[in-house]
Amino acid sequence: MQFSWRRLLLGDPIPRKNLDEQAISKVKALPILSSDALSSVAYATGEILTVLVLAGTTALSKMPHIAILISLLILIVAVSYRQAIHAYPKGGGAYTVARENFGVKMSLIAAGSLMIDYVLTVAVSVTAGVFSITSAFPILASHVVALSVIAVIIITWMNLRGVQESATAFMAPTYLFVAFTLLMIGVGIFRYFTHSFHPVQYTPTSDFFSYEGTAPLTTLLILRAFSSGCSAMTGIEAISNSVSVFQKPAAENAEKTLLYLAMLLITLFLGVSFLAFGLHIVPLNDQSVLSQMGHAIFGNGFLYYGLQVSTCLILLLAANTSFTGFPRLASLISRDGYLPRPLQALGDRLAFSNGIMILALLAIILIVLFDANTHKLIPLYSVGVFLAFTICQAGLIKVWWRRRKKGWIFKLSINTFGAIATGIAVLVILDSKFTEGAWLFIVAMPIIMLMFYKIYQHYQTSDREMKVSYAELTREDEMATVVKPNAPKVVVPLSKIHKGTLAALEFAFSLSDDVTAISIDIGEGDAAKLRKAWENCGFSDEQLVILKSPYLSVIEPLITRIRRIDLTNPEAGLAIVVMPKALPAKWWQNLLHNHHTFMLRHALYELGRTEYKGQARIIVEVPYQLH
Amino acid sequence: MQFSWRRLLLGDPIPRKNLDEQAISKVKALPILSSDALSSVAYATGEILTVLVLAGTTALSKMPHIAILISLLILIVAVSYRQAIHAYPKGGGAYTVARENFGVKMSLIAAGSLMIDYVLTVAVSVTAGVFSITSAFPILASHVVALSVIAVIIITWMNLRGVQESATAFMAPTYLFVAFTLLMIGVGIFRYFTHSFHPVQYTPTSDFFSYEGTAPLTTLLILRAFSSGCSAMTGIEAISNSVSVFQKPAAENAEKTLLYLAMLLITLFLGVSFLAFGLHIVPLNDQSVLSQMGHAIFGNGFLYYGLQVSTCLILLLAANTSFTGFPRLASLISRDGYLPRPLQALGDRLAFSNGIMILALLAIILIVLFDANTHKLIPLYSVGVFLAFTICQAGLIKVWWRRRKKGWIFKLSINTFGAIATGIAVLVILDSKFTEGAWLFIVAMPIIMLMFYKIYQHYQTSDREMKVSYAELTREDEMATVVKPNAPKVVVPLSKIHKGTLAALEFAFSLSDDVTAISIDIGEGDAAKLRKAWENCGFSDEQLVILKSPYLSVIEPLITRIRRIDLTNPEAGLAIVVMPKALPAKWWQNLLHNHHTFMLRHALYELGRTEYKGQARIIVEVPYQLH
Repeated sequence: MQFSWRRLLLGDPIPRKNLDEQAISKVKALPILSSDALSSVAYATGEILTVLVLAGTTALSKMPHIAILISLLILIVAVSYRQAIHAYPKGGGAYTVARENFGVKMSLIAAGSLMIDYVLTVAVSVTAGVFSITSAFPILASHVVALSVIAVIIITWMNLRGVQESATAFMAPTYLFVAFTLLMIGVGIFRYFTHSFHPVQYTPTSDFFSYEGTAPLTTLLILRAFSSGCSAMTGIEAISNSVSVFQKPAAENAEKTLLYLAMLLITLFLGVSFLAFGLHIVPLNDQSVLSQMGHAIFGNGFLYYGLQVSTCLILLLAANTSFTGFPRLASLISRDGYLPRPLQALGDRLAFSNGIMILALLAIILIVLFDANTHKLIPLYSVGVFLAFTICQAGLIKVWWRRRKKGWIFKLSINTFGAIATGIAVLVILDSKFTEGAWLFIVAMPIIMLMFYKIYQHYQTSDREMKVSYAELTREDEMATVVKPNAPKVVVPLSKIHKGTLAALEFAFSLSDDVTAISIDIGEGDAAKLRKAWENCGFSDEQLVILKSPYLSVIEPLITRIRRIDLTNPEAGLAIVVMPKALPAKWWQNLLHNHHTFMLRHALYELGRTEYKGQARIIVEVPYQLH
Repeated sequence: MQFSWRRLLLGDPIPRKNLDEQAISKVKALPILSSDALSSVAYATGEILTVLVLAGTTALSKMPHIAILISLLILIVAVSYRQAIHAYPKGGGAYTVARENFGVKMSLIAAGSLMIDYVLTVAVSVTAGVFSITSAFPILASHVVALSVIAVIIITWMNLRGVQESATAFMAPTYLFVAFTLLMIGVGIFRYFTHSFHPVQYTPTSDFFSYEGTAPLTTLLILRAFSSGCSAMTGIEAISNSVSVFQKPAAENAEKTLLYLAMLLITLFLGVSFLAFGLHIVPLNDQSVLSQMGHAIFGNGFLYYGLQVSTCLILLLAANTSFTGFPRLASLISRDGYLPRPLQALGDRLAFSNGIMILALLAIILIVLFDANTHKLIPLYSVGVFLAFTICQAGLIKVWWRRRKKGWIFKLSINTFGAIATGIAVLVILDSKFTEGAWLFIVAMPIIMLMFYKIYQHYQTSDREMKVSYAELTREDEMATVVKPNAPKVVVPLSKIHKGTLAALEFAFSLSDDVTAISIDIGEGDAAKLRKAWENCGFSDEQLVILKSPYLSVIEPLITRIRRIDLTNPEAGLAIVVMPKALPAKWWQNLLHNHHTFMLRHALYELGRTEYKGQARIIVEVPYQLH
């Protein structure tokens, strides 16, 4: 096999084997499916503090109350999702649950929320990951946008290449992060009671050190802090969406894993939040809360850097989960007809690649627009997550009601409670965060819905339009709508006589005797040379038309001439255009050829669309291979 | 005419009328051709100060010496370029001059430098323009990357739309900027002598206020400051490159305009630099030198904001000049065979659009990588500019030597002096700015040169390969390299029977009797339906092959089957593949169709490339119009 840069960059065209195809144990499933949820611990506490500090450093004392409230909500959401495991053992995301229980409209709202979620998971996780690195290495602080964009590009590239998704490689960052954070919490509690913290070094430039605040500590402010903290539970739904990857008994194992995840998440989140309170940590613009805490507890040695690096790794891993989730969701929606069919993953690599690249592009746009600032992205993030939670819980209520098997009342109550709790969270977030970015969600949703409907409508219309009624088919003349095979007129545009144009001419003559070759003379004296070559080939003189183009334009005079040929003998139908097309040996060489072929094709289709309604012209590209 | 979003976004497909086509007066030519040069005043002084302050605020007293040295260099460069007007009255950029006087290699070095220049003109001007806005509105300061990217996108969009290049609209920003700056200098000098400045408000956070410095004031530091200041004369070559746009006598008018430009540029640059010295202005990260000066001289009223806005406008206009210059240069290089032919502007809009989009993309990449920071971009910028200056001056020396007409010794001396001065500047910049970014130029140049040569080589080889020797043509069998027109085998891949597939089948049967329709059954029970529809159409049963695909892959089994058909009867050549292709009514609907057609086409060409060396398969797309 030849060496190829493209292969080096994008990998062998192997079919993508998904993790789903092999059952995995709980010990492996936990880190793989929970990196998104656990990594939220890296920013959720900081987000709460950032809001509270607006009412001055004294307001930071509200931290524990909010943290406990959020932990309770985590518990409620986890118990609610535990039920989803039994209802949808094949994995029921909000989209599937909504579609089966509430019909199309609600499922599309869920789909829109989830798509926004996936994009924001990438943007938030990557920017938070970069923040954990710039906290440890302040010299990089002015490059956050560039670093975040580069990180997204690297993750994209790995996904396009199709990295062998080795469970071990995925386990390491999660367990490392959990280990470092638990260690920090343990040592932190010990030091708290022994009063042996390393001093936190606040410099006079820190904006919020012993800060008076600009806002009063109102209920709204506390609600806003709560909304920000809700980002702690993003990603918790991953386990119930992927029940099928577990070893048998899959449902039980998934349930247990979800329980472990919830306990671990609450432990980490509460631990970090209480330490932040105990250490009087003040949110800084240039250092994450976890980094400040690491300095205070571990000092400046290996353990501190280990904490920061493992935080960055789990956050990048969390971003990576979107790169498998987004294309899969897009494929589901596409099969239902609401997204372009090229996103349907039919086992071919290209389909998944489309989804991956769209996700990367959207995430990069968000990162640049929001200056790679996690704080600014969070309000937008939480709305979608909680809306999807609510829809999923509400769907489960309907499932239990429909089935009404043993114990249904209990199950229904739990999900009702979950739906109400998450529903209230949606309203709180929307209300308290509206001006800070949640309004963007309200703007984006109708646009996404409109897109879904436009696409669906188009497929419906075109399918109907193309449908063949068999009654029609019996009449011979109805069939011949496109070309009269008897004596078609054929046009061959060319600029030189070479092996490629000769091949095109040969095929043209095999189609019909009525062949016209057209060449554009852009006034560099090539016309006479061409005419001579034409004669040398033994073709008849009147079959070559050379047109002068004073404006150096090639396409326009060609189109004008082809239109005139179409009109000369209407019964023969539209002229068939036969064009030579170079097939270069290397993919990049495609950029060097065929631009006129490409432009002419486009112009001819455009002509067909605007002038010959209903009739389409056959365009044949006769390829020739270059070496 | 139908309403079309595309038309709204990209404008009518009118041929681009260039400014060249209408002769313009000096009063109009000056602002249009000099926005790039004059706008440099907005950042050049600040760049000098930023370097000097490294040796402490006392080092800022070296400012006037450096400013005078640079003004002298501006004079030298202007006088040298004045000569270019007579030597190349049709407009001779560094590329043309180098090509005619030093041959291909040197011309490609010039071409590479100029291409880098154009990209950096966009990046530097846009970021400096955004800086002038964030200086006046500090609330926007954290969004510089996003603002700069958005500005590039807007300029790109206007250029893709092809704005009517009205001279008046282009004159306003330049004259406004000149008026505001001259007014500031005048009032500034008055206030200087009457000691009536508004106080400059340095806050304690300004990094450099009464700063001790971190570096000694060495000669190297002064050279570095000089190199940074050299950015003042970027763009000065524009007039001599566009002599043909002037009213007759064009050469005289161009000469006079260049003289006015040089005088104006020196006045503004010296004025701003001396005021910066007199006002003891210290470079700040959050406010440009011009903005500080504006505050000190105009206070905070209308005049200050007028200054900032007009600065931003002239800088954006300067960025805009690259959007006409870059595609034009790319087109020239492409005609010589060193860039892809699709960049050749042959009167068709698409060709120019390619150049515009490549320029925008490269500029955006630079802006994001350099955090939209003008300081960081400047070192990279100046090398290319001065290298192009030097090559152009050196070329002129050869011109005068070759011609040796009356007065040639004088002319030759001037250009020799210019070449030496700018050549020394290149070395100084390279040496003093190497670690700060100039090394990137050294890395980029060989890559660009390699690209030029690879492209040239490819065109040479493929032209040679495709050449027809007429001796061959007399033998009948040599002509038939691609398809035997006698009894070709034809394959029609399809998934359903609809009007589009029927049209494709009809054309297939017009080519040959040996037609095979192939369909892939992805296991959703459509196979039986298809077979029934096939029979209803009256086709023979054995002409339809339905293949099962367990992996949901469509392309792979199709390719395997087509290969088998190729092999059954080698004399008939490769099978012709006829595919239906949907032509939607609106361009975005293209995203919703034809992905299988696209993928199969790609796979078939890939198969041809790897397995059937030398033989290429004809692929026919039979279009059907959707409404």
